[in-house]
Amino acid sequence: MNNRASQFFLELQETICRRLEEADGAARFRTDRWNHAAGGGGITRVLEGGALFEKAGVNYSAVSSTLTERLAKRLNTTEQSIFATGISIVLHPLNPYVPTVHFNTRYLELESGTAWFGGGTDLTPWYLFEDDTRHFHATLKAACDRHDASYYPKFKKQCDEYFYLPHRKETRGVGGIFFDYLKGNFDTIFALVQDVGNSFLDSYLPIVAKRKAMPWGATEKEWQLIRRGRYVEFNLLYDRGTLFGLETGGRTESILMSLPPDVKWAYDFTPVPDSPEEKLLGVLQHPREWV
Amino acid sequence: MNNRASQFFLELQETICRRLEEADGAARFRTDRWNHAAGGGGITRVLEGGALFEKAGVNYSAVSSTLTERLAKRLNTTEQSIFATGISIVLHPLNPYVPTVHFNTRYLELESGTAWFGGGTDLTPWYLFEDDTRHFHATLKAACDRHDASYYPKFKKQCDEYFYLPHRKETRGVGGIFFDYLKGNFDTIFALVQDVGNSFLDSYLPIVAKRKAMPWGATEKEWQLIRRGRYVEFNLLYDRGTLFGLETGGRTESILMSLPPDVKWAYDFTPVPDSPEEKLLGVLQHPREWV
Repeated sequence: MNNRASQFFLELQETICRRLEEADGAARFRTDRWNHAAGGGGITRVLEGGALFEKAGVNYSAVSSTLTERLAKRLNTTEQSIFATGISIVLHPLNPYVPTVHFNTRYLELESGTAWFGGGTDLTPWYLFEDDTRHFHATLKAACDRHDASYYPKFKKQCDEYFYLPHRKETRGVGGIFFDYLKGNFDTIFALVQDVGNSFLDSYLPIVAKRKAMPWGATEKEWQLIRRGRYVEFNLLYDRGTLFGLETGGRTESILMSLPPDVKWAYDFTPVPDSPEEKLLGVLQHPREWV
Repeated sequence: MNNRASQFFLELQETICRRLEEADGAARFRTDRWNHAAGGGGITRVLEGGALFEKAGVNYSAVSSTLTERLAKRLNTTEQSIFATGISIVLHPLNPYVPTVHFNTRYLELESGTAWFGGGTDLTPWYLFEDDTRHFHATLKAACDRHDASYYPKFKKQCDEYFYLPHRKETRGVGGIFFDYLKGNFDTIFALVQDVGNSFLDSYLPIVAKRKAMPWGATEKEWQLIRRGRYVEFNLLYDRGTLFGLETGGRTESILMSLPPDVKWAYDFTPVPDSPEEKLLGVLQHPREWV
């Protein structure tokens, strides 16, 4: 198995946690090292109850496991053993005006040597600020464009398609990029993955800086809690990474650290017409081009 | 299609909502009638913000729809059309000492006339009171025993197996009964289903009466919110009724009315050794016989 990818993910975890602690200013990450029953393990870092982040999870793993029959079928292979390494981040800010964000990159390698990268990042605001969304997408586009001009448009579309809740007829958020089964020359694709990884904080932290001091009240908090319910629905019903992890006997607390701290389900909640809440829904129902 | 089953479910919904309103004393059920795109529809009744119930949902439906390929495969049939009628109840009390409860019975009929009943009820306490659990199981056993002495032991075992979260190595609660694909003489099985339906309130309301005035504080509430997270995990990851409903284009708000009102995910939460919270976990990890 190739260890350059896992070494990069490990270092990225360290850098990102340090900079998120600086941004938060109050709370620190705890660190849990764990082993997978099948082989390998990971480091889970979680910050809770911060000034900025209600919950922030940054997970690194490098695991050798056995494919379940269902997963082998989906990957169109009969091979039984898989090496998977990756970094996965979900940040849940306290202030409803600061968007939740997800970032993940991973490298998978089958017994035969067949290998690929996957990953992506998507922004989930509870209130729409078009400038913020443009900044997020522009930063990702710049990282992609340095490698192949066809990447961003393709990955942006795949993101809207992947982070979609058919039972709600909504995207999870305002998108970003998503790619999977990226195969070919290791060095070429790894360079893209590194660039995307190194761009993550630049895509997100300037948005945090602009929104974190905005005052909010009960209306904004309730809306955030209800919309976080959609986040839970996506992760437990559809997210391939979550289901892959649980199916292959991954560490439950590390996989489900993506779930928001406080969540609310209100029956048939409908935003007030022409409210900022309804404006967000419009964009989730009809994804736009941002750059 | 047979309408006697759906008529019974409709009347049971009416009776149960009336008695739950009496028990709550403060809030009333709202009523939403809806149509399914494929044919038929339902009546969803939800009570929120009550004195006793933070959220109570009682759903009736009678829908003709088309089997998805995946569902047809699971049912081992190639038939495309299915009639499904049922009643589904989930009650989320405010007081952490009052258990959450679920009840559901349903009748399904394929184009060919092949038909079966399914259903069950299970109790999910956040604190273990052995007397309450014995009362719940004894009431269900009595209803089953009036029809066939082999039912309760079989259905009790199936309940422990069905309401199980493999990624947590826990049952959802202290069980009850669960049955599916009950085929044979319609009248015989329908009599059992009626008896179980008519016993539901007798199995649950006496427990409510004993626990509803117990004082609780922040510790009990936090535990309830965290355990409700497990309820969400079960429903979205494993519950066949939820997944069936969402896959067949059911009304999302009616299907997901089962989700708790307020929920919390805390990273790697572990109860204090020898606490009442830890005592509950012991029973969820090692299901017992109660009658």
